Amino acid sequence: MTRPLIFMDPFPRNEAMVYTPDCAAELAKLGKVITHWGSRASDDLVETHLADMTVLIGQTAMPKERLDRALNLRAIINVKANWEPNIDYGECHARGIHVLSAAPAMAPAVAEFCIAQAITLLRGLHRADPLFRSGNEAYGIAGNLQAKSLYGAEVAMIGYGNLGRALAPLLRPFGTRLMVHDPWLSDGFLRTEGLEPVSLEDALGRADVLFLLAGVTSENEGFLDRKFLETIRQDTTVVLASRAEIVDFDDFLDLAGSGAFRAAVDIYPQEPVPTDSDIRTTPNVLFSAHLAGGLNASYARIRDTMLDDIGQILKGLPPLRMQKADPKLASMMRSR
Amino acid sequence: MTRPLIFMDPFPRNEAMVYTPDCAAELAKLGKVITHWGSRASDDLVETHLADMTVLIGQTAMPKERLDRALNLRAIINVKANWEPNIDYGECHARGIHVLSAAPAMAPAVAEFCIAQAITLLRGLHRADPLFRSGNEAYGIAGNLQAKSLYGAEVAMIGYGNLGRALAPLLRPFGTRLMVHDPWLSDGFLRTEGLEPVSLEDALGRADVLFLLAGVTSENEGFLDRKFLETIRQDTTVVLASRAEIVDFDDFLDLAGSGAFRAAVDIYPQEPVPTDSDIRTTPNVLFSAHLAGGLNASYARIRDTMLDDIGQILKGLPPLRMQKADPKLASMMRSR
Amino acid sequence: MTRPLIFMDPFPRNEAMVYTPDCAAELAKLGKVITHWGSRASDDLVETHLADMTVLIGQTAMPKERLDRALNLRAIINVKANWEPNIDYGECHARGIHVLSAAPAMAPAVAEFCIAQAITLLRGLHRADPLFRSGNEAYGIAGNLQAKSLYGAEVAMIGYGNLGRALAPLLRPFGTRLMVHDPWLSDGFLRTEGLEPVSLEDALGRADVLFLLAGVTSENEGFLDRKFLETIRQDTTVVLASRAEIVDFDDFLDLAGSGAFRAAVDIYPQEPVPTDSDIRTTPNVLFSAHLAGGLNASYARIRDTMLDDIGQILKGLPPLRMQKADPKLASMMRSR
Amino acid sequence: MTRPLIFMDPFPRNEAMVYTPDCAAELAKLGKVITHWGSRASDDLVETHLADMTVLIGQTAMPKERLDRALNLRAIINVKANWEPNIDYGECHARGIHVLSAAPAMAPAVAEFCIAQAITLLRGLHRADPLFRSGNEAYGIAGNLQAKSLYGAEVAMIGYGNLGRALAPLLRPFGTRLMVHDPWLSDGFLRTEGLEPVSLEDALGRADVLFLLAGVTSENEGFLDRKFLETIRQDTTVVLASRAEIVDFDDFLDLAGSGAFRAAVDIYPQEPVPTDSDIRTTPNVLFSAHLAGGLNASYARIRDTMLDDIGQILKGLPPLRMQKADPKLASMMRSR
Repeated sequence: MTRPLIFMDPFPRNEAMVYTPDCAAELAKLGKVITHWGSRASDDLVETHLADMTVLIGQTAMPKERLDRALNLRAIINVKANWEPNIDYGECHARGIHVLSAAPAMAPAVAEFCIAQAITLLRGLHRADPLFRSGNEAYGIAGNLQAKSLYGAEVAMIGYGNLGRALAPLLRPFGTRLMVHDPWLSDGFLRTEGLEPVSLEDALGRADVLFLLAGVTSENEGFLDRKFLETIRQDTTVVLASRAEIVDFDDFLDLAGSGAFRAAVDIYPQEPVPTDSDIRTTPNVLFSAHLAGGLNASYARIRDTMLDDIGQILKGLPPLRMQKADPKLASMMRSR
Repeated sequence: MTRPLIFMDPFPRNEAMVYTPDCAAELAKLGKVITHWGSRASDDLVETHLADMTVLIGQTAMPKERLDRALNLRAIINVKANWEPNIDYGECHARGIHVLSAAPAMAPAVAEFCIAQAITLLRGLHRADPLFRSGNEAYGIAGNLQAKSLYGAEVAMIGYGNLGRALAPLLRPFGTRLMVHDPWLSDGFLRTEGLEPVSLEDALGRADVLFLLAGVTSENEGFLDRKFLETIRQDTTVVLASRAEIVDFDDFLDLAGSGAFRAAVDIYPQEPVPTDSDIRTTPNVLFSAHLAGGLNASYARIRDTMLDDIGQILKGLPPLRMQKADPKLASMMRSR
Repeated sequence: MTRPLIFMDPFPRNEAMVYTPDCAAELAKLGKVITHWGSRASDDLVETHLADMTVLIGQTAMPKERLDRALNLRAIINVKANWEPNIDYGECHARGIHVLSAAPAMAPAVAEFCIAQAITLLRGLHRADPLFRSGNEAYGIAGNLQAKSLYGAEVAMIGYGNLGRALAPLLRPFGTRLMVHDPWLSDGFLRTEGLEPVSLEDALGRADVLFLLAGVTSENEGFLDRKFLETIRQDTTVVLASRAEIVDFDDFLDLAGSGAFRAAVDIYPQEPVPTDSDIRTTPNVLFSAHLAGGLNASYARIRDTMLDDIGQILKGLPPLRMQKADPKLASMMRSR
Repeated sequence: MTRPLIFMDPFPRNEAMVYTPDCAAELAKLGKVITHWGSRASDDLVETHLADMTVLIGQTAMPKERLDRALNLRAIINVKANWEPNIDYGECHARGIHVLSAAPAMAPAVAEFCIAQAITLLRGLHRADPLFRSGNEAYGIAGNLQAKSLYGAEVAMIGYGNLGRALAPLLRPFGTRLMVHDPWLSDGFLRTEGLEPVSLEDALGRADVLFLLAGVTSENEGFLDRKFLETIRQDTTVVLASRAEIVDFDDFLDLAGSGAFRAAVDIYPQEPVPTDSDIRTTPNVLFSAHLAGGLNASYARIRDTMLDDIGQILKGLPPLRMQKADPKLASMMRSR
């Protein structure tokens, strides 16, 4: 019996991320592995293996004309964690090819980063160290005049996908009210998750802590425009965690910089941010450089979930741990 | 029927902390209230009311000779959250006078601060903003070479009192192993709390994240000396959260500053820290100025638990929410 | 714009179960509703509406030749909670027709029944009332010689589908170890659910409490045969909850009746059980008449999840609350 | 150094309950053990050891005149789990003698029994087996016309002591509203426990499931009289779990027997219940013979918590796991 061919074309992921020796050994148990690193595989290389490929790991283009020739293909494993537009999701679905994303494996790291950003902003932890070092600290309540607690806060999440599902359990022990605005999810579903469905207006206007966790689609790009952002209360803490494109970024920074709300920003419309960008001098914002998800622990989790689900698929069983592409919604997503 | 006398002598707490208008109104329902602010009440003032006092709110000295004359006294409510040595705890116990501390009301705020400190150190959040602003940021995995996740970490708490009990539920959703070293608590008790009792050596040597949460007693002052601190692994994150006196502070900073471990410090042997103190220039430590517990949210909680328990006591019922002094252990504590 | 046609052919479900006035009103908001009750709809009736049907509620046969003509069909909602063999699941999948089952809505009721069966057997609650009424009771420990506690028990579930997922949270507060044997689920997945994957042999041999929750497929019918059942320890409590066909039923009753283990049985190879069946006189078994899932509360939940997911589908969004048919696995299931 | 004397006079507890070989070995490590079995120790025996006793395990009378001579006594460990009136609780407290009860160790077993009683009554599990054996069963919904689910029910507890604290976590996963009426507990405390404080009237009138968990004191004996019991709704399930004396027992059975509510009864005003008592023929009640707490698992837990807390006390540390007597409330309790 022929061993299944596992074709790896995971650029921009590298070997340290998705093909460590342990992982390579496990993959080798599951099939014959062919890898390509450092760039996206050439058309020639893809074509050479297309007919034999059983599992494709990577973000290789898979339009219908390729699928027509990939007759053994049973799974496409996106390890970049964003759906790309170069796959015919409908055709994959119709042919029973599993299209999976590693996004759930990135979510815990992002969630812990988000909760640290939120408490840091609420409690002023980011200012405390420079104030202390410069001898300008105030102790106890005198240093805590602007401090707020996460306990009992009203929390709203805009978007409740992989990130929200990882974040909600971290928030529960704080006894926070958890509001969600997500137009893809029914109120009944959210309530069974112990969440309160709210309108976008209510999420923005009522939250003490607001997590912006929505993906970017062809329909919602920039939907949080200045008009909406201006409805956020001054004492609200805002964590922009999923994609910069869901807000009007200039307006967001303008408002946050002028003290309209407290904000943490980890993702940008363009990365790296140009050296001379005004972004870098915006006061009153806690910046970081797209650090929320991409650490070794996340790649270990990606390897683990990927191996697990490839194992399931090669046994003819449904995958369990990676995210399954919904043909319509995946097609709408705007990756970078 | 005479209304019970509630005598308030809560300095260094002030009216905004423990006698807001709402709180004053509630206390007035419970009894006749006499207050003194801005300093500790004079002996004369205390003596004037001693015989009538039913509830004492504050850290007023209560040696045996005073208790002998405080024949109506039923409760002493410490709102500073540390047991002071100026009370005869044994006599109070013998006379059935409840001695209570507001420490549990401070603990949630400290716990959320601790978890933010820990994730900040693990993920490098405190360095991210200055790096970004100065144009020295690295994105994603390149910026995360030192980053670690709290998920699945081995966590040890040295001391499991009010702080540990508030912190443990925040750690649970991260799936961390929770080890505790606390010589006042039996292994059986810790196990029923879902915690793993460990020796001090194991706590120091095995933890990925180490929370120093012990109180200071006449017996344990400085027990975490250089010899012990040197057994902490280099990749361990250490949060010093309860009292500076439990460590040899100079050695702690010396080791942390030289990269022996990652550390966050919120409390100091002397506060305010002298302007020219070397502490302020110690590299590699996340400092803050005793900000963990003392914010408005904590004082609101103090007022709430205090009113609740005074209500219970005046009905002849046991208090429920504040910490009860154990006569022996409270006598051993070293307050400041 | 034409309103979508919702065709209801839910026999053996009746109006009280899946078409109460509230539910009818909600469905009427979503589309034009045509219903048939009391039998399965005739071919003629189905054919009349086939071309217009957008949503089919019921267990109507849907082979490929019908699907070829059901060009508007977007969802098939099985409200009987078992996959039937009269649907071409692969074709439905390929065409993007959602095939959903109400099974998750039945699971909570079954789970609470299971936990009551288990504690009843462990604690002897079913014998207590007749013993008391006949004057043969023994009090306290004398009456509890055979009693065991669920707290800290080793629990195994054979099968971890809808039932197991509802049952596990009910077991958590008892501090039980939760072992699972389910050949469709990877060890990695089970571990992320906080469950311990075990072999069938270990599940049978180690459990103090054993829940038989597997579905019946063409491959596993009767897989728990006498040889396996004889490996169950005498002090094990066995709850047969999903389908009688997963065990060799005669051997199961023979062993349970002779005291090889404690057992509760709610489902039978043939229902109703013949009046003169030997089953009825089997000693030592706690019987009930397929009561675990089918009560009003479950049908209310079915209506709720069904309305929710039809709403999602008609908006072009993925369903969220009902179970999605896996084309291959659903085809293997053996319904009755 | 003299080893502490541990005097065991635990009747009606016997060796199998509180002095198994393992337990005896552990106690022997802690001190010199003197035991008396089969009856309460004679005054002579008690007097012989009174001066040396450090720990008393049992329900031996300890009035002030004895305490005056028990100068080494540091702990009295009640292993019967009800406070008895033969101890001067105030004197013990004043002298710093810990008075502890094993009640918390009994509570889990009672809680699991209660939840099984409640679901059994809600779902009719106790009737299902005799109906099936006699050929009178109805299947599925036809057999479930009276069945109700615990999920989402309104639950009230009258009394929130050891039993309620063990029961609440078992109820949480059912998503029930948890109301509590307990005049010894403040509303603020109950709310921090995630419970809703309600009046007795509301508890009785609103509950779908009502757990009667209060202890009996000199003040509340029979407080649930006919007038109150008549306010319980017909579809309410009532579990009488703590002490028969909190209700007017005749009226309770009269009402339950006539279908005024569903009821489970495990405890009786007199035990054993007289052979010819009318109680035994009361229809419509699920009886058991004081089986809820007293099984081997509970005695194992008693031994475990007792050893743990004696260890703490002999180290000069506060006990952690057993219940501490409140001098005033313990004095009010009515034991049997």
